[in-house]
Amino acid sequence: MMLLLVVRVYVCIFTFIFVGSQAVENTAMDNVATERRAEESHRQDSADLLIFIMLLTLTILTIWLFKHRRFRFLHETGLAMIYGLLVGVILRFGVHVPRNTNNVTMSCSVNASPATLLVNVSGRFYEYTLKGEVSTVKGPEVQDDEMLRKVTFDPEVFFNILLPPIIFYAGYSLKRRHFFRNLGSILAYAFMGTVISCFVIGLVMYGCVSLMKTVGQLGGDFFFTDCLLFGAIVSATDPITVLAIFNELKVDVDLYALMFGESVLNDAVAIVLSSSIGAYQPAGDNSHTFDATALIKSFGVFLGVFSGSFALGVATGVMTFTKLRDFPLLETALFFLMSWSTFLLAEACEMTGVVAVLFCGMTQAHYTYNNLSPDSQNRTKQLFELLNFLAENFIFSYMGLTLFTFQSHVFNPMFIIGSFISIFLGRAANIYPLSFLLNLGRKNKIGSNFQHVMMFAGLRGAMTFALSIRDTATYARRMMFSTTLLIVFLTVWVCGGGTTPVLSFMSIRTVHGPTSLCILTLLVHVFFFVIVFASVGVDSDQDNSVNALDGIQRRDTEHERAWPFRMWYNFDHTYLKPLLTHSGPPLTATLPACCGHLAHCLTSPQAYENEGRLHNDDSDDLVLNDGNATMYEDVTVSTDALGTRTANPKHSRMPAFGEHELVVRGTCLVMQLDDPTMSTPPPATSPPPFSDPFVDPFSEPRRNRL
Amino acid sequence: MMLLLVVRVYVCIFTFIFVGSQAVENTAMDNVATERRAEESHRQDSADLLIFIMLLTLTILTIWLFKHRRFRFLHETGLAMIYGLLVGVILRFGVHVPRNTNNVTMSCSVNASPATLLVNVSGRFYEYTLKGEVSTVKGPEVQDDEMLRKVTFDPEVFFNILLPPIIFYAGYSLKRRHFFRNLGSILAYAFMGTVISCFVIGLVMYGCVSLMKTVGQLGGDFFFTDCLLFGAIVSATDPITVLAIFNELKVDVDLYALMFGESVLNDAVAIVLSSSIGAYQPAGDNSHTFDATALIKSFGVFLGVFSGSFALGVATGVMTFTKLRDFPLLETALFFLMSWSTFLLAEACEMTGVVAVLFCGMTQAHYTYNNLSPDSQNRTKQLFELLNFLAENFIFSYMGLTLFTFQSHVFNPMFIIGSFISIFLGRAANIYPLSFLLNLGRKNKIGSNFQHVMMFAGLRGAMTFALSIRDTATYARRMMFSTTLLIVFLTVWVCGGGTTPVLSFMSIRTVHGPTSLCILTLLVHVFFFVIVFASVGVDSDQDNSVNALDGIQRRDTEHERAWPFRMWYNFDHTYLKPLLTHSGPPLTATLPACCGHLAHCLTSPQAYENEGRLHNDDSDDLVLNDGNATMYEDVTVSTDALGTRTANPKHSRMPAFGEHELVVRGTCLVMQLDDPTMSTPPPATSPPPFSDPFVDPFSEPRRNRL
Repeated sequence: MMLLLVVRVYVCIFTFIFVGSQAVENTAMDNVATERRAEESHRQDSADLLIFIMLLTLTILTIWLFKHRRFRFLHETGLAMIYGLLVGVILRFGVHVPRNTNNVTMSCSVNASPATLLVNVSGRFYEYTLKGEVSTVKGPEVQDDEMLRKVTFDPEVFFNILLPPIIFYAGYSLKRRHFFRNLGSILAYAFMGTVISCFVIGLVMYGCVSLMKTVGQLGGDFFFTDCLLFGAIVSATDPITVLAIFNELKVDVDLYALMFGESVLNDAVAIVLSSSIGAYQPAGDNSHTFDATALIKSFGVFLGVFSGSFALGVATGVMTFTKLRDFPLLETALFFLMSWSTFLLAEACEMTGVVAVLFCGMTQAHYTYNNLSPDSQNRTKQLFELLNFLAENFIFSYMGLTLFTFQSHVFNPMFIIGSFISIFLGRAANIYPLSFLLNLGRKNKIGSNFQHVMMFAGLRGAMTFALSIRDTATYARRMMFSTTLLIVFLTVWVCGGGTTPVLSFMSIRTVHGPTSLCILTLLVHVFFFVIVFASVGVDSDQDNSVNALDGIQRRDTEHERAWPFRMWYNFDHTYLKPLLTHSGPPLTATLPACCGHLAHCLTSPQAYENEGRLHNDDSDDLVLNDGNATMYEDVTVSTDALGTRTANPKHSRMPAFGEHELVVRGTCLVMQLDDPTMSTPPPATSPPPFSDPFVDPFSEPRRNRL
Repeated sequence: MMLLLVVRVYVCIFTFIFVGSQAVENTAMDNVATERRAEESHRQDSADLLIFIMLLTLTILTIWLFKHRRFRFLHETGLAMIYGLLVGVILRFGVHVPRNTNNVTMSCSVNASPATLLVNVSGRFYEYTLKGEVSTVKGPEVQDDEMLRKVTFDPEVFFNILLPPIIFYAGYSLKRRHFFRNLGSILAYAFMGTVISCFVIGLVMYGCVSLMKTVGQLGGDFFFTDCLLFGAIVSATDPITVLAIFNELKVDVDLYALMFGESVLNDAVAIVLSSSIGAYQPAGDNSHTFDATALIKSFGVFLGVFSGSFALGVATGVMTFTKLRDFPLLETALFFLMSWSTFLLAEACEMTGVVAVLFCGMTQAHYTYNNLSPDSQNRTKQLFELLNFLAENFIFSYMGLTLFTFQSHVFNPMFIIGSFISIFLGRAANIYPLSFLLNLGRKNKIGSNFQHVMMFAGLRGAMTFALSIRDTATYARRMMFSTTLLIVFLTVWVCGGGTTPVLSFMSIRTVHGPTSLCILTLLVHVFFFVIVFASVGVDSDQDNSVNALDGIQRRDTEHERAWPFRMWYNFDHTYLKPLLTHSGPPLTATLPACCGHLAHCLTSPQAYENEGRLHNDDSDDLVLNDGNATMYEDVTVSTDALGTRTANPKHSRMPAFGEHELVVRGTCLVMQLDDPTMSTPPPATSPPPFSDPFVDPFSEPRRNRL
């Protein structure tokens, strides 16, 4: 049954693009004819799917060309959209296939539209499944072109097939340490910011729509809830392009984590927000009156769905407690299936699968990843990277395509201009006031330049598109969809592509500029630089020098941590990690003596074995886009390089430091450590002064980088 | 459109397993009700798909347990089937969901069964797509259980989703060198053998069916073409279990290649054979008379489809000429898309996608694999391994499930017994006479023990199942399907699981037994062993010792090659490989001087660079199932280990041999070479006597292992 429908992936896409109509009159030969028709349909669908595959292939080749020639003016997703647009133009104006005469219109005495229809054709029963309502807004003649009709996907595909790998990958590749350190700010931006943005956009658009109604430019109903829904939809910023910008812009990793974390989480917030606005809608649909009950209900839906999805995602992420280390294939398969089942479980429980998958990815990156064998870590990373890449480019190609092939576009200049103004205002109302408030509490201030970057990096991408195409039944929804499409195009092309040089220019100012952040960054860099060279000069031991750096830096970061984070960190490090992963100190060491037996049962044998090299398993810079992040990696990911190197047993313990295995944190210009020419043997004496007097008593003995 | 149907993967599988009926009477609220129903349906489908995911998860965990505890009595696919059976029993007898009342049966005035139906429900148009004919053989009450009906997949799924990765992986992991060396024998077994088997089974079954008709046990029509079709279906042996058996059985790699190659290729032959028998059928459907025209047509279809698919697969395999070495992600994505497009292209051209994919995989392993960066080689290998693993276990789980959930089983004891006898006879008529004939021409004889192994290893698996479930419209087809299911179960459980100890015992006899093959193998092994130790003792240089071995062995294998193979090899090595891959000697060196300019244009710059280390790129033992083949790898895959090691620039050229870079071929007991303790530095003197006086003048300078 399921597979039946997967098959139609091949079988039903753009059926009959190339074949004309083929009426079958002979009822006696009906069986054979049906078979032949099915074959023909299958043949056609294969050909049509081939078009999409070719589109993706073309995109990949062009991306390669761009990367090879180091063209940076257009992001790959922007490219995919352009190709989609071209094919859309060809399909729209180049090919015209009239509606197939095999489609029989029946006006039978059915009251409802059942999910399944059994049609009795001269004694044989045929089963039909409901595909959806056919749009009749502009009359049936709009649907005349079979090909354009076939090219329009079921929007649910985006939520069920294409978004999950993208969102999971985003969660799985969140820079975890920096993410958790900035959790407060990220949550503020993601929750409060998105809600603010949603309401600002909603209000501005309501003003715009009212104006349009006065001028007489509005061709249908457009309620306040529609405006709010529009606000929720276009408040979701896209995390994918942030990676590219982050590559250009050598920004502080904390601030990167902020930006990436915000754009990942606000997707989750936007999707739940839009569904809770949908829950408000039925009651307020036909009235402009304010309905307090419905509002509370909406709020309840929001909280329930979000926390439910969160709990589910975290629970399944935690459950994926794999012990299959010896068989990477089995491990990878299990990991994949568990992640997928998270999605399905959430959907089955009427939660939001995409949100669950996001938190599942984050939890798995934090816990499960440590249990995987190195081979599986690599495999899962690469698998999800590939799925993410294909899904992303497919969505953006389809976006380009749908601009021409969607047959009920409603483009309204006033609405479009209004929406561009509103998203600008909404983004501004999100970033600037919140940054100001957050800066009151933050040690590591969010500089004004960085606020501008966050403002610009608010591209709208796959999630916005998927949310807007989900429902195009009413006039308001159609106008929203068309406008959203334009917003995505413009933000991806202009912000994602054209402004990277501008941002790169701004990033130069970020390093040399007069703001407190920049001076701080500069000073820290110079300081570390001096220390690196000093320590290299003193003992030529790269491990020690990194740990030296770390000692300094940890003192710095230890101070700036808020207490809730510190508490969480300690709890996580001391109890959760040992319980859920093979890494971390054994529970026998962290639990009180009275719980000795319990602790012994719950600690895996590997935890004892791994005790010495634990901090290597939990590399922070988990998944970095190989192609994109090279520049940035050179600067900051030496932690990772060190981690990989020290995974080698002979580097795994720093002999001079003993139990004081210190940790690299924050940005540090230690790219020289990657240089193989520097791997001169360490001298017998190693410097003791970096033994970190500011060490947190809670986190002792500390063996894990968070 | 395509995605619409992919979504239904989630949305429509087993709709309403847990929900009962929910009639919607209110036509005014029809829109909202439809939406809610769609949501509910989606929720249910997620829950149901979850069952399948859990089934797979359970299988993986049990496989792990088996591997961990080294249980060998049951193959993992056998395990998947058992779990499928259990779930099938539960679904069949534990849960009963009555047919949903939403399914309206309409008896409208439609003459044919159109692919799409537009239903006018009080002014709104709903689109319905044809799902298929509902079986009415036992009356509509059979279809009463909604859940069982929903659990039955569209058989095309197997051909379009699940088989392609399995078959592609089989092609991609064929041991190429040994495959090509035994090409003649493999083709004989695959083509002639499968046709012989098909006709033998067909004839035996026709006898059986005639007997049944006489006794009055036949409940419907069963023509000779049905018998032949049954023969074609059950002639496809499964390659997957061969790997496991090969693991147990330390058999000559040539003979392994024979066995694996046969079972891969006969899948392709069986699928084309069954479709060409189908082409014969319409004319001979209602008569027992022999139709020469139809036979010739069938034969034409067979040749056309097979050669067409072959050409397509090879063409796209060759076309995947990737130069994206710097970006493994792009490269992997491109590779994946190209392989998929091969399938689609073949289906669009009315060829057989599965066959095309097989040859595409083989071609890509032979050419494209050499162009990939090492990272991409790893990624593609792992990706397809995962896809293969998931698809395989899914199919076998479903097989178990369908024994109880398929509602129109026709089990006929006589037919079942007859079919078991016939497949035994068919397999025997395939293996023994052909082996006898082939042995007349082969230097490396196919021993009688090995013939017995091939006889036993003829498991029926995924392809047989997919072919038999493809059409279950008639009584004959249903009986064939039910019987095939039993055949698959028994062969997988008995041959794939239980007899591995027996085969392992037989393999001991293969090494020590009195047949010429075994003596030969023993002698060769002893000889090589002596040489290895001698050369190690003389100069302790592993590279040289391997090449020494190679010199001896190549002389041996050079002789046993048939001239068509030698010609092909030379052509491939001298022209095709340099043209299509970065490996091989540059065309400028192999083409005559008059073609200098052309050769220069066609040779990639990398070919010159790689010139020195070419033979390393073309490792023969491309994809070995990590988990399974460990034992075997220890014995023979030292070639690979060497290849990997010499890919390191400092090993890439053997200084003493100069242009005489010799090649390791055949089985050799050089596993010691993998031992890192043996890597003592090579002495200045290296032994010249192994410079291979029998070297083929055509293949000089020889830098590539075939």
